[in-house]
Amino acid sequence: MILTFAGGVGGAKLAHGLSLCLAPAELMIAVNTGDDFEHLGLHVSPDIDTVMYTLGGCADRERGWGRSGETWNFMEALERLGGETWFKLGDRDIATHVERTRRLRNGEMLSAVTADFAEKLGVRHAIAPMSDAPVRTRVHTDEGDLDFQDYFVRRACKPRVRAVEYFGARDAAPAGPLNRAMSSPDLRGIVICPSNPLLSIAPILAVAGLRDWLSRRKVPAIAVSPLINGAAIKGPAAKILRETGMGANCSSIAQFYCGLIDGLIVDPGDVAGTRPPEGMQILSADILMRDDADRKRLAQVALDFISRLKSRR
Amino acid sequence: MILTFAGGVGGAKLAHGLSLCLAPAELMIAVNTGDDFEHLGLHVSPDIDTVMYTLGGCADRERGWGRSGETWNFMEALERLGGETWFKLGDRDIATHVERTRRLRNGEMLSAVTADFAEKLGVRHAIAPMSDAPVRTRVHTDEGDLDFQDYFVRRACKPRVRAVEYFGARDAAPAGPLNRAMSSPDLRGIVICPSNPLLSIAPILAVAGLRDWLSRRKVPAIAVSPLINGAAIKGPAAKILRETGMGANCSSIAQFYCGLIDGLIVDPGDVAGTRPPEGMQILSADILMRDDADRKRLAQVALDFISRLKSRR
Repeated sequence: MILTFAGGVGGAKLAHGLSLCLAPAELMIAVNTGDDFEHLGLHVSPDIDTVMYTLGGCADRERGWGRSGETWNFMEALERLGGETWFKLGDRDIATHVERTRRLRNGEMLSAVTADFAEKLGVRHAIAPMSDAPVRTRVHTDEGDLDFQDYFVRRACKPRVRAVEYFGARDAAPAGPLNRAMSSPDLRGIVICPSNPLLSIAPILAVAGLRDWLSRRKVPAIAVSPLINGAAIKGPAAKILRETGMGANCSSIAQFYCGLIDGLIVDPGDVAGTRPPEGMQILSADILMRDDADRKRLAQVALDFISRLKSRR
Repeated sequence: MILTFAGGVGGAKLAHGLSLCLAPAELMIAVNTGDDFEHLGLHVSPDIDTVMYTLGGCADRERGWGRSGETWNFMEALERLGGETWFKLGDRDIATHVERTRRLRNGEMLSAVTADFAEKLGVRHAIAPMSDAPVRTRVHTDEGDLDFQDYFVRRACKPRVRAVEYFGARDAAPAGPLNRAMSSPDLRGIVICPSNPLLSIAPILAVAGLRDWLSRRKVPAIAVSPLINGAAIKGPAAKILRETGMGANCSSIAQFYCGLIDGLIVDPGDVAGTRPPEGMQILSADILMRDDADRKRLAQVALDFISRLKSRR
């Protein structure tokens, strides 16, 4: 079994690629919930939905979020009633939030609701939130401290980031499905998807016991760089890495994952400039995922890398 | 000022007619909330919405509920996720329920949210819930006791009704706007719309103090029959009147409002068969409202009736 950590769009793409290479029992996708928030009284889990819609074949590929063939009549009617419209929710998408909120209020775990929704959408591989307990990413900026979606959507990532905090993470245990994968004798490797390190992967690593477990793991772990030539494919990763002083380059990514991974996959153009910590191998591969074939190809590269690292361990 | 009590579709039509005859300051529409319920975790107020959408010019005229030009992608997506779909909520309509629920949970009164929504939808006349406190209509049937929407929508009014109860009504004070209309020196009459007596009007009359106030009022009150030749225009009024032993005819309607109204408007074909209680006048008029012109015409008939009764009082 392969355990993968995923955040937003890039993470969903590689997770999808892995699902095209592995049987359902061979993959567990643990997803960041630091971006989750209550909006309009509804529990919204943006990263879970992006992964779920992507694997369910109903994600919008142009927009990068929400569902394909979406309509916006809810939003239009909400605007007329004076409701908040800075966070866009499509007519189909809102069914996810309404029904999830209802079930959570009814006492169900987010992991149970996620597993059920994914199955209903035709996803055969396991998707789980990193934790069933709330973790909320908060961004400290030069314009004050902002809730994640305030920073990410409402302010369009414009304020300068000083630090990122993951409220609740210390007290949040890994969700049941993730916990079972972590202790499974069948676990043969870990893949950290090309998601934003500070916004998507760090909240997962902050979950109680997870970083410690990852540093002591007996199986190989690798990550895929979210940067190509110092720029993110999508999103503010490069900007935030610069603003926090880490640097928008693959050496910073390697340093960020120091002690947690055995190998890092970087774009061919980044190999020469990447200085990994001792013991971390760098693998060169085309990491841009333009289509399903790219997703599957990169996933297979990651899986082969893990197999090679395993034989060395 | 005219105070009118309204329930579902028939009520909304006459309330609309009254709004076409009267200036905004001259009309207060108090609406049944006994049908309100929590569905999918959302507060749904079907009668308020029917009145609000009708006066706002965005009600669906064919279906008799919900909004015109509606789409159903939320419902379709909800069904796929395994959610409950017996109560239909359109994509535009759901914005009303989501935003109202959010505001109610935030501590606002239903009357305040209703007034604001109505204004946003372009309604210039006052619409208020009968009460800001919850009243829940419960239907005792030969198949057990049912929540109103379970009976009305899920069971399509099929079970035989034995009695109808209005939970919470005794402790529910009239909402602020209704209370102000009741004590206004400008009040010159009351119009009970052609709504289902037991399901739409009785919950209003059950609100604390309202029946008593109506029986002691100093201004004329009239009602418009919801039946034509023993049949309801729409809905189960006739069926329920028969099942509860009251009888599906205008004499029963007159008896139901005994002591509460001075006049009853019935269809020309029903005049001969209607035996009113002593002191109640019967007025013959075409009560079928096919279009806006009919609504306005019937409203004017009701207003003229009130003026005549006033001169007699």
